[in-house]
Amino acid sequence: MVITGKNFIGNQLSAKGSESYKTYNPSKNIDNETVYVEATTEELDEAAALAETAFITYSEMPGVKRAAFLNAIADEILNLGTALVDIYCEETGLPEGRALGERGRTVFQLQLFAKMIASEDWRNIVSEKALPERTPLPKPSLQKTHIPLGPIAVFGASNFPLAYSTAGGDTASALAAGCPVIVKSHPMHSGTGALVASAILKAAEDTEMPNGVFSNINSKSYARAHALVSHPKIKGVGFTGSFLGGSSLQESVWKREEPIPFFAEMGSINPIAIMPGSIAENHKEVAQKIAGSMVLGVGQFCTQPGLILVMEGGKTDDFIEALEIALSKTEQQCMIHPNLKQNYIQQSDKINDLNGTKVIKTGREIPDDTFVYPKLSLVSGDQFLKDTKYQEEVFGPFSLIVKCKNTKELEAVTHSLKGQLTGSIFAQPSDYGLITPLIQIMKSKVGRFLFNDVPTGVEVSDAMTHGGPFPAASDSRFSAVGHGAIYRWVRPITYQNWPEELL
Amino acid sequence: MVITGKNFIGNQLSAKGSESYKTYNPSKNIDNETVYVEATTEELDEAAALAETAFITYSEMPGVKRAAFLNAIADEILNLGTALVDIYCEETGLPEGRALGERGRTVFQLQLFAKMIASEDWRNIVSEKALPERTPLPKPSLQKTHIPLGPIAVFGASNFPLAYSTAGGDTASALAAGCPVIVKSHPMHSGTGALVASAILKAAEDTEMPNGVFSNINSKSYARAHALVSHPKIKGVGFTGSFLGGSSLQESVWKREEPIPFFAEMGSINPIAIMPGSIAENHKEVAQKIAGSMVLGVGQFCTQPGLILVMEGGKTDDFIEALEIALSKTEQQCMIHPNLKQNYIQQSDKINDLNGTKVIKTGREIPDDTFVYPKLSLVSGDQFLKDTKYQEEVFGPFSLIVKCKNTKELEAVTHSLKGQLTGSIFAQPSDYGLITPLIQIMKSKVGRFLFNDVPTGVEVSDAMTHGGPFPAASDSRFSAVGHGAIYRWVRPITYQNWPEELL
Repeated sequence: MVITGKNFIGNQLSAKGSESYKTYNPSKNIDNETVYVEATTEELDEAAALAETAFITYSEMPGVKRAAFLNAIADEILNLGTALVDIYCEETGLPEGRALGERGRTVFQLQLFAKMIASEDWRNIVSEKALPERTPLPKPSLQKTHIPLGPIAVFGASNFPLAYSTAGGDTASALAAGCPVIVKSHPMHSGTGALVASAILKAAEDTEMPNGVFSNINSKSYARAHALVSHPKIKGVGFTGSFLGGSSLQESVWKREEPIPFFAEMGSINPIAIMPGSIAENHKEVAQKIAGSMVLGVGQFCTQPGLILVMEGGKTDDFIEALEIALSKTEQQCMIHPNLKQNYIQQSDKINDLNGTKVIKTGREIPDDTFVYPKLSLVSGDQFLKDTKYQEEVFGPFSLIVKCKNTKELEAVTHSLKGQLTGSIFAQPSDYGLITPLIQIMKSKVGRFLFNDVPTGVEVSDAMTHGGPFPAASDSRFSAVGHGAIYRWVRPITYQNWPEELL
Repeated sequence: MVITGKNFIGNQLSAKGSESYKTYNPSKNIDNETVYVEATTEELDEAAALAETAFITYSEMPGVKRAAFLNAIADEILNLGTALVDIYCEETGLPEGRALGERGRTVFQLQLFAKMIASEDWRNIVSEKALPERTPLPKPSLQKTHIPLGPIAVFGASNFPLAYSTAGGDTASALAAGCPVIVKSHPMHSGTGALVASAILKAAEDTEMPNGVFSNINSKSYARAHALVSHPKIKGVGFTGSFLGGSSLQESVWKREEPIPFFAEMGSINPIAIMPGSIAENHKEVAQKIAGSMVLGVGQFCTQPGLILVMEGGKTDDFIEALEIALSKTEQQCMIHPNLKQNYIQQSDKINDLNGTKVIKTGREIPDDTFVYPKLSLVSGDQFLKDTKYQEEVFGPFSLIVKCKNTKELEAVTHSLKGQLTGSIFAQPSDYGLITPLIQIMKSKVGRFLFNDVPTGVEVSDAMTHGGPFPAASDSRFSAVGHGAIYRWVRPITYQNWPEELL
């Protein structure tokens, strides 16, 4: 498979545009070679028209046929072999182990949805028989099922070139639901995206899917992203990225003549509250665990724990010291892109420059590469409550410790938080008497609620919720990960009084 | 129970405002006596603050306790006896039979949700055990459940003073979910609303619900409606009404700092396509059935069939004549309010004044009362396709027949339609060969799809979908009627690694 840099408009390679870009190798600090040609409005229209037509047959296909397609995509991704792993590493600076792990997750997700749709149970069909003798009025027969919405636009995420991008969770769940997908390739890893797109199109051909069931569009342009979510043939959007990016696309969705479901997962600072008993009994172990979660993937996870809530007294200062020591053992790591490094430094500086922040650990990055240090800062609960700027996400291995005077202040700090993907409480039985109000407050803020556990590592399963109150997600009623993700792309419909033979 | 005209702010009567209004008796053409005092911003804030506090305990209550509350509301509504029926009729001009029927529906809905939440099954809990030995990484225990969003604002609907208003489907489903409710009483039937509100508050007291679990606000003011959906303590909105009203509130919801779920059911013209075989075999019976559906409740139903699609030739003209004759047997009927009559005349005139409309049946209403005639008009498929104004809803007993040249044009007309609450096909086995494409096109447009049946009469059951693609509803993924309605007001949350004793 040669990466051409062209767009995949259905099963055709296309490069009608005049703008282009390259991806970047952050560990070597050089541009990668391939030139990606930005999709034109015309190409976008073509992809949308193909998707609309493909929807007619694709949406009506038996689940087992769509399942075969998803399984074939998984196989073809594995068939890409080392070519995929190599380009993944070249475009992200992430290690091979991470590439393999994320590939495994991506393949697993495709297979999971394939298994889910191989039976029609996922449609939650409810059948009610007619009751012609009912008084005062007879009851008609009713059958409720779920049908797909139409073509879905998916935005690749910078931090997950495989699992949340081209054939990631949004694409897999939308294809499983019966929706064609148009992916806007993330410009930081358009080569990885192109290889995966080729795998999807090979699978589509082998399993005889309609042309247009999948397109992959290169774009660095904001205008193109907005054109995609504004396109009248697009009936839903899946986005993973920053609050700024998500909010801006949401505005465009709201301006449509026909508003459509827009699911954005937009970041989170994932508070961890550590109770005195937990610190007294395990401060080193807890510090170790949190440090590991902070720096995992160079902190480039939406579930990175950016906020650590503790209370004064006891061994709290020992815990902070242990956390600092644990972080000091982490070497400089390479971020995915210089832009991310730059943002990381700006965002952490912004918090550190606030009146009241005490810097516990930092590092002076050199300007000419993409490597960063983990950073740790501290602020009092009192101060935190005065300024919502402390709540702004720093994308990278940064955490802010909030030291509260007492349980009441800890609860107030938690109450002040915006919606989060996750929240965690570390507690020992000796703390249980203290935490009832905290549990209730934190529950109201989060999509996933952890106990004595760190937020990184999102299981792909039926019991998962990856989402949460705004701004963690644009709609808290859906999950971006696990079986539940499919319900973002379907709607109920009820058949009334239909003869069996026509259903 | 004396109707005071005051607001119910939690369990207190309150009338701090200086603005007021009266309801109207449309059959007698006089104002009703009670003066309703418009709620102030301060009263709205009070209701919202009480609701926020009530949420803390109400959301955590066992389902059986909330079920007892809902059942008690049902009982107290019945205990209102003839007082409720009398004021319902005085404020709407609708007959006693309709009042009793709608009361029955309202009580049934409350009892249905009570039954649903008496067990916790509705939360769709998914539990996954920890797999500490799993490689490469252990799996934590996960438990997914659904929790309520917070205080919900409900807008009473003009056309259903009981079943879609104060204690209607939105309120019942939100209370069932564990959400306190603030109702904006519909100004056309604030007396009916006040009686029902008193029943709810009596039930709340008897079953020891927290103060603020329910408030009822009088308002004729658009500004107050927008203030309600914009209030930061409100976490979801249920609206039933016009497209104009719904869209305008939606805009306010989108301007919030924290966007919230807004479910609006905004009207529909409910197309009915009648195939040649059906007309050939049953034209009189079909005409009779459709005429009955058209004029039911003076056409003041969101499922009123406003669009009838037929094809030239055969007995189609006989069908149209039969429909006209059936409608001619309907006497003038009283609409709910002079404003609705005025809109009915304006909206039907607007369609009739379009180039290409042929008026089949009309009636000259006198300006000084609230009575109207059913109306029927005709347009060619060709002409219909040229102007989306033909698709505008006429709220009342009006239908437009679209006479198409052939199946292809009928399909094109159906394809041109916006989203609808319902769509119907009338067909005989002789038509089955013709209707495959039509079925697929119409399916993509509707929330409920009927076969040889008329859209009025919405079952309250698990298999119901009352909603549909935009603009029938603001989000096609939810239903406003039946068990499914509760899921508008809850979100998933996943507990990870929690000890049993703390769950």
